[in-house]
Amino acid sequence: MDVRPGTRTPARIWTIEGASGRIRTDTIVTEEPLEIRLIAGGERQTVAVTMRTPGNDFELATGFLHGEGVLADRDDIARITYCVDPGVDAAQRYNIVNVTLRSGTLPDLAALERHFLTTSACGVCGKANLDALEMHGYPPLPPGPLLPIDVLYRLPDQLRTGQGIFQKTGGLHAAALFDPDGTLLAIREDVGRHNALDKLIGWALLEGRLPLNRAVLLVSGRTSFEILQKSVAAGIPIVAAVSAPSSLAVDTARRFGTTLIGFLRGERCNIYTGRERIALPEGGR
Amino acid sequence: MDVRPGTRTPARIWTIEGASGRIRTDTIVTEEPLEIRLIAGGERQTVAVTMRTPGNDFELATGFLHGEGVLADRDDIARITYCVDPGVDAAQRYNIVNVTLRSGTLPDLAALERHFLTTSACGVCGKANLDALEMHGYPPLPPGPLLPIDVLYRLPDQLRTGQGIFQKTGGLHAAALFDPDGTLLAIREDVGRHNALDKLIGWALLEGRLPLNRAVLLVSGRTSFEILQKSVAAGIPIVAAVSAPSSLAVDTARRFGTTLIGFLRGERCNIYTGRERIALPEGGR
Repeated sequence: MDVRPGTRTPARIWTIEGASGRIRTDTIVTEEPLEIRLIAGGERQTVAVTMRTPGNDFELATGFLHGEGVLADRDDIARITYCVDPGVDAAQRYNIVNVTLRSGTLPDLAALERHFLTTSACGVCGKANLDALEMHGYPPLPPGPLLPIDVLYRLPDQLRTGQGIFQKTGGLHAAALFDPDGTLLAIREDVGRHNALDKLIGWALLEGRLPLNRAVLLVSGRTSFEILQKSVAAGIPIVAAVSAPSSLAVDTARRFGTTLIGFLRGERCNIYTGRERIALPEGGR
Repeated sequence: MDVRPGTRTPARIWTIEGASGRIRTDTIVTEEPLEIRLIAGGERQTVAVTMRTPGNDFELATGFLHGEGVLADRDDIARITYCVDPGVDAAQRYNIVNVTLRSGTLPDLAALERHFLTTSACGVCGKANLDALEMHGYPPLPPGPLLPIDVLYRLPDQLRTGQGIFQKTGGLHAAALFDPDGTLLAIREDVGRHNALDKLIGWALLEGRLPLNRAVLLVSGRTSFEILQKSVAAGIPIVAAVSAPSSLAVDTARRFGTTLIGFLRGERCNIYTGRERIALPEGGR
């Protein structure tokens, strides 16, 4: 049971216009810590604490653990619960998710770090070596699908329409998955753009949809190394963004064969890599 | 010597408009990993790997280590150098910064984690406990300074004018420090907004300017828990942002007495906490 949709927090604020102010009540996007714990064979280990917008927490934990190489598919999971340890402060019980593995032993997380990644393209992670960026063990993406340019142009409007919270708080990143015909598969929001993507990939894993070899990912902001890293791990062939990519996002996309699109606004975009998956109408070049 | 101003990377891209495309050369904001190492008493330890825009790397390492509680002021530092270990691949020598402490022993980083924080409000960090959010040991901010509202209104324009790279790549976060009379003290940019702030705080530490008890911080994006956490640690009393704060940013500001301003656009803003530091003209309320 994935509860806690508390994505907005009311607050009394001062709004100043010109030289005068008034007090009013506003809604602010909720940010709270989520601790992700792994349980196996009677042992328990905290894997991460992430700052996130509550909601879809089981998906977030699942997607994060997929990115870390701990979960390959839903059969790896025995159950996911909020912490019910009476020793935990009541206020924090919905800020701790326990993921119990079918496996009888906890994974060697130090070894997994070498397998995959640093986890924060816009922050800092404690992982200890530049070699972790090598992303060993991920195969290049297979060819296809073909995405018509007019379908691509329509995706940002669908993201905005599907985005519930942003318009009320102005504080959330969004990520969405689409079919190559433009059908919206899922949309998730969070104060952290990596969390929004983890929630999407966790959803796909729990639905048995990985790898997402025919999906198009659209993110509301910029694309960094980590967005590409997570999308490669989930097998996503086409990644589009409303804003700019970073150099390492472009390098990673090129290396694994991702189609990377930026500045998707109106009937205009930049294609940085993987041009062959975008279909222009006849006569277009 | 803090070299590597390689903040932009050229790339050959396809620009599609409507139904036709053309190849052109564009510049993309550079994102590369930076490994921060501590050295003391002949021992060496990697503290973090962060994805960052090259440039001001010594400030970034310094500011990060200040936020972690490792460095209080510049006298704690014996020297800062890029890695000159011939065993390190030449391409990565400017991606590793060694910070040598005057102290003869490495700090107990596990203990420091309890002192301070999780490090990534928009990502995930490996720190292991919600208690880390308690931010033990930081005193509330002292009263003052008083910031006239017309000075506040002018800050975003000064940020944009001072921001060199954004206009060319569209990919960078900016953070700037001002005096209460609106004088720009320093401005830094990065793909990661936390890095931009770490660079600013590292600059202040290296200049002997901490605590920044009379400074105003302006950030180009949103304010999250981590932005408030780092600003509290640096003693910054007024934090303003062009976009929205999160709930935990507001909570943290209230707890430590920070003045927190959001949606600073034109002659309009929201004040979430610490209203007493903002001066309206006579007649204004």
